Amino acid sequence: AQDLGMLAAAGVTAVPVHARPRVAIVSTGDEVVAPETPELLAGQVRDASSVALGAIVAEAGGAADQRGIVRDDPDALRAALGAALSDSDVVVVSAGSSVGARDETATVVAGLGEPGIWCHGLALRPGKPTLLADCDGVPVIGLPGNPRSALVVFRLVGVPLVRRVGGCTHAPPEPVVRARLERDLASAAGRLDIVQVRVRDGVATPLFGASALLSILTAADGYLEVPEPATGLDADSEVWVTLYR
Amino acid sequence: AQDLGMLAAAGVTAVPVHARPRVAIVSTGDEVVAPETPELLAGQVRDASSVALGAIVAEAGGAADQRGIVRDDPDALRAALGAALSDSDVVVVSAGSSVGARDETATVVAGLGEPGIWCHGLALRPGKPTLLADCDGVPVIGLPGNPRSALVVFRLVGVPLVRRVGGCTHAPPEPVVRARLERDLASAAGRLDIVQVRVRDGVATPLFGASALLSILTAADGYLEVPEPATGLDADSEVWVTLYR
Repeated sequence: AQDLGMLAAAGVTAVPVHARPRVAIVSTGDEVVAPETPELLAGQVRDASSVALGAIVAEAGGAADQRGIVRDDPDALRAALGAALSDSDVVVVSAGSSVGARDETATVVAGLGEPGIWCHGLALRPGKPTLLADCDGVPVIGLPGNPRSALVVFRLVGVPLVRRVGGCTHAPPEPVVRARLERDLASAAGRLDIVQVRVRDGVATPLFGASALLSILTAADGYLEVPEPATGLDADSEVWVTLYR
Repeated sequence: AQDLGMLAAAGVTAVPVHARPRVAIVSTGDEVVAPETPELLAGQVRDASSVALGAIVAEAGGAADQRGIVRDDPDALRAALGAALSDSDVVVVSAGSSVGARDETATVVAGLGEPGIWCHGLALRPGKPTLLADCDGVPVIGLPGNPRSALVVFRLVGVPLVRRVGGCTHAPPEPVVRARLERDLASAAGRLDIVQVRVRDGVATPLFGASALLSILTAADGYLEVPEPATGLDADSEVWVTLYR
């Protein structure tokens, strides 16, 4: 705000700015149906990730382009991603949740452009089956199929990428709070763990549940990181919690 | 973002929300001219506050309504504020900087509605000559004429008010950082001091200068508060710095 004031004081009423990066969001999976679907058949699930990812894209300064749901079929996926690549600055795919569907996504992405896949799998929990690729200069992020993992990975990997593509060299500060960990947290060394917590009166209580449960995210005040080398954190240790807004 | 995901998963694609509060921004002062003015005459100053206040209003969830610059004349001010009150949820006035102009603003605001003026003057630096009023249910904030004071006061008093009027009962968390104060800070007991600081490697360096200098705000990483009862803060004490985004 003060920068705008300073510009106005100097009589500068127009400044060149970076265009918002266009971020295509593609959902995949035969089981995934639009949120508008009133009744679900057995095995169907509404697309929760796309709208949530769109909100995070907007927070990161990007313009989300919802490209809808693509069925588990290599040709359909190739056509959808090819079209998305041609008019986007970043492409995000919520990959199908089955291992087979994930492999299929990787095969399709590998054939979309050069140099192709950077990595398939991150030392991160949740978020291990993340795919990162560069298709002729356009970054492609393949997210885990379950919504909670997808949102965790996208905040960690996608937000800095969208900001960078949008010309933002200094990330704005995140709200954090110092808290005392309520209980021991186990973790495997060599993997970054993201743990959702509630914070009450300076005490951080970890929330656990199936990785697909969005309710853990909505109940959390924020998250803490168990660093890669650590095998866990002891109860009563001091931790930094990054707060959800 | 996760809340939107949760709603989508449940098939809820429309929710009732609170309307954005309409916040009228009125500048006053014969010396104040529009930012577009290419050449200034002696004694003129471009309106830096309005555009900066508009940006803070947007951050707080409001819709800024720029009502332009009104000359130092009670009838003109009465007409402008009356019109603003009739179609706004909050009215913000950047009052003229002279004592005479401030008194004039207070007189006009006092006659606009009931119960009228709450207070004229806050135990706050910068920001002492702040006017708060309730004109038939519409809150009116009269800000100091100099842009730096106006922005400090509006962040402290205006933002919570705009959020409240907009139906926000829990303020989103602010980014803060713990730092070590580089030097002694003097303050008068019985007054809250807002001090802009730069933060480098965990050390907070206070920035000083004339209260009108917007450059202090643009150079600062954030601000710290010297609490009302304190007569100052010692060098090397630990402080919380609220970061500007």
